[in-house]
Amino acid sequence: MAPRRGGDGGNAGGELPKRLKTDGAILQTIKDFAEATARAGIRGEKRSLSDLALEESCREVAELGSGEVKEEIEKLVLSVTKSILQGQGLAYTVPSRTSANQLYVEELDRIVLKDKTSIRPFASSSTVKKTAITTRILELVHQLCSKQIHVTKRDLFYTDVKLFTEQAQSDTVLDDVSCMLGCTRTSLNVVASEKGVVVGRLVFVEDGDRIDCTKMGVGGKAIPPNIDKIQDMESDALFILLVEKDAAFMRLAEDRFYNRFPCVIVTAKGQPDVATRLFLRKMKMELRLPVLGLVDSDPYGLKILSVYMSGSKNMSYDSASLTTPDIKWLGVRPSDLDKYRIPQQCRLPMSELDVKTGRDLLEEDFIKKDPRWYQELELMVKNKEKAEIQALSSFGFQYLSEVYLPMKLQERDWI
Amino acid sequence: MAPRRGGDGGNAGGELPKRLKTDGAILQTIKDFAEATARAGIRGEKRSLSDLALEESCREVAELGSGEVKEEIEKLVLSVTKSILQGQGLAYTVPSRTSANQLYVEELDRIVLKDKTSIRPFASSSTVKKTAITTRILELVHQLCSKQIHVTKRDLFYTDVKLFTEQAQSDTVLDDVSCMLGCTRTSLNVVASEKGVVVGRLVFVEDGDRIDCTKMGVGGKAIPPNIDKIQDMESDALFILLVEKDAAFMRLAEDRFYNRFPCVIVTAKGQPDVATRLFLRKMKMELRLPVLGLVDSDPYGLKILSVYMSGSKNMSYDSASLTTPDIKWLGVRPSDLDKYRIPQQCRLPMSELDVKTGRDLLEEDFIKKDPRWYQELELMVKNKEKAEIQALSSFGFQYLSEVYLPMKLQERDWI
Repeated sequence: MAPRRGGDGGNAGGELPKRLKTDGAILQTIKDFAEATARAGIRGEKRSLSDLALEESCREVAELGSGEVKEEIEKLVLSVTKSILQGQGLAYTVPSRTSANQLYVEELDRIVLKDKTSIRPFASSSTVKKTAITTRILELVHQLCSKQIHVTKRDLFYTDVKLFTEQAQSDTVLDDVSCMLGCTRTSLNVVASEKGVVVGRLVFVEDGDRIDCTKMGVGGKAIPPNIDKIQDMESDALFILLVEKDAAFMRLAEDRFYNRFPCVIVTAKGQPDVATRLFLRKMKMELRLPVLGLVDSDPYGLKILSVYMSGSKNMSYDSASLTTPDIKWLGVRPSDLDKYRIPQQCRLPMSELDVKTGRDLLEEDFIKKDPRWYQELELMVKNKEKAEIQALSSFGFQYLSEVYLPMKLQERDWI
Repeated sequence: MAPRRGGDGGNAGGELPKRLKTDGAILQTIKDFAEATARAGIRGEKRSLSDLALEESCREVAELGSGEVKEEIEKLVLSVTKSILQGQGLAYTVPSRTSANQLYVEELDRIVLKDKTSIRPFASSSTVKKTAITTRILELVHQLCSKQIHVTKRDLFYTDVKLFTEQAQSDTVLDDVSCMLGCTRTSLNVVASEKGVVVGRLVFVEDGDRIDCTKMGVGGKAIPPNIDKIQDMESDALFILLVEKDAAFMRLAEDRFYNRFPCVIVTAKGQPDVATRLFLRKMKMELRLPVLGLVDSDPYGLKILSVYMSGSKNMSYDSASLTTPDIKWLGVRPSDLDKYRIPQQCRLPMSELDVKTGRDLLEEDFIKKDPRWYQELELMVKNKEKAEIQALSSFGFQYLSEVYLPMKLQERDWI
């Protein structure tokens, strides 16, 4: 069933539906925006840590192929063997991943790791076990890269429970090994479980299979845990619509929103998982498309956007491959509540914890750097009101896809 | 990368890999089983509530099309209108869904609803609000069926927050309306969010798109929330492998296990959601394939199997369309721990709550009816040991797909 333009917006929705222009006019607006984004992307593309004259020296990891990872491990093992033969014993130099060693780089708009390291000697009672674990993890990763298979952190833990004792141990050392080898955790062939789905104007090859995301019904395609299996992305979309929640994704997929306004729709169903973050970044980089974020109007919606954009502190060493710069905050923004006349009953009072979380966010770099984001968040904290994307259903089930989003696009109403 | 037969089972695994027969021999074993299942299916297929001479009269709902649901609503509204015009006021007859009105039917192996009902009059201060909510839900569902769109429970709640006040209210009445109209909740076009994924030897049509699950890369196809969009299932698989967790699904998908032993692999990533349960049942019924369950060896693994088989108590009125009878417990079974020599370190001690949950399960009908299931559970509770599917990784990352599962199939080791 093809969605009709405008529509009656269900039972209510006021004047807005009448103010909607033709789809052609709205499309032209998005086209201009998409082209501007692509041009900016080409200009800004070379920005990496090495281009910036930072006072502090920083460390970043890269996406490496299985062969390269094997080579790095072999080099490392050779060097420690040499150290042992020279009578200096077994020790690893491990980059520090504590918050004291983290830095938010405004020019890159993400958190990176500074270059402090520590020595992990085998001949010390405090580090002997960690050194043994590090050696074992290096061996297991070498095995994974040789076999070219992928496993989860949990699988890795179970290969040697006796040594690792608990999963936190093998997990931590795995992140250490990423930093030591200078590659992403995904390059180690250890992946997170998948949660995300994608639908819309995107075609890619996954492990040899050609996937056409316009032909994935209403359920969409599950985003695979191993991003390196994805190749040859192609798209005639004008933008990527990043959706916080499942329900909104479902509405847009069922209405085939992407056929009316060419786009790719992606969601991680809540907290962004690593696979979805990698996938989003890959799309953004290869297709040079603008990304518009549709999240709940509450502090957690903003936090979710920030994880996509600036990364989580825990994995700051890998911020380059996990973050997608320049995501636009499309909605639902605190100012939308009045602008779109969301009924009072559909707004929820913020709890004390919500308000505190909001106030804390006001101090975060990614909010402070854009006065418009700051103002919106200030408004939320002041009014102490939040709203879910689904609050738009109060004007009819298809208000989101037939009125709210077209209007947002028409008015370039993103920040 | 095509998986090799047998393999070295990683670092260990003992004698088992050597005892594996050729794939051809194992395939013949599964073929015999699949044929027997299909024959049994044809014999047992007509078993429904009406075929049984139960002493108590029971109520079940059916999958109805949008047109039929509309008709039922219109009939209902006409009858209450008549009642109003006759001066008898507005009242609904609502089936009771309390546990006192539930019944486990052994012949069907699922929970059904008995036929107790209650009257919900508008002219009573205790039920006036619920009657109003019921009327509003009937109106909204009629609208959904007319537009042929699907929404979530959350969307439904937001269409009239003023009346519903909280989501629990609209959710409860929605289930009431299902029972009143005699149709499944899915027929009302109100769906749960999707979580499940599927991969393997299955082709179907989803909302007009042809989906080939052998060509879904390693991530698989997301199972859609609205089962009625799925049609024309075809398969040359010999069995359905129902997997509790994501990590095992990933392993089997990456190893393309379904190409070595033709099967369909499906997971709900933990607790079974409604969409995955509907999907599994549809597959089982249309393709007449045996279903083999691979879950953790703990009480929750068993609970998950039971939800797929017998349904959850909360939705017992809809057990016919939500349950898949006759799922075989393939593994990981408590007796497997010794049989497959799972190292002591990979077994986890059961907490007191685990043991209590296990003991409670011993009282459940679905366990008691099969002495082999009962024995296995008894063993678990006696040894107070549990193990995850991933514990098999202690013999090598691919032990699951290259040794454990082929051996299970070869020996018909399911109960």
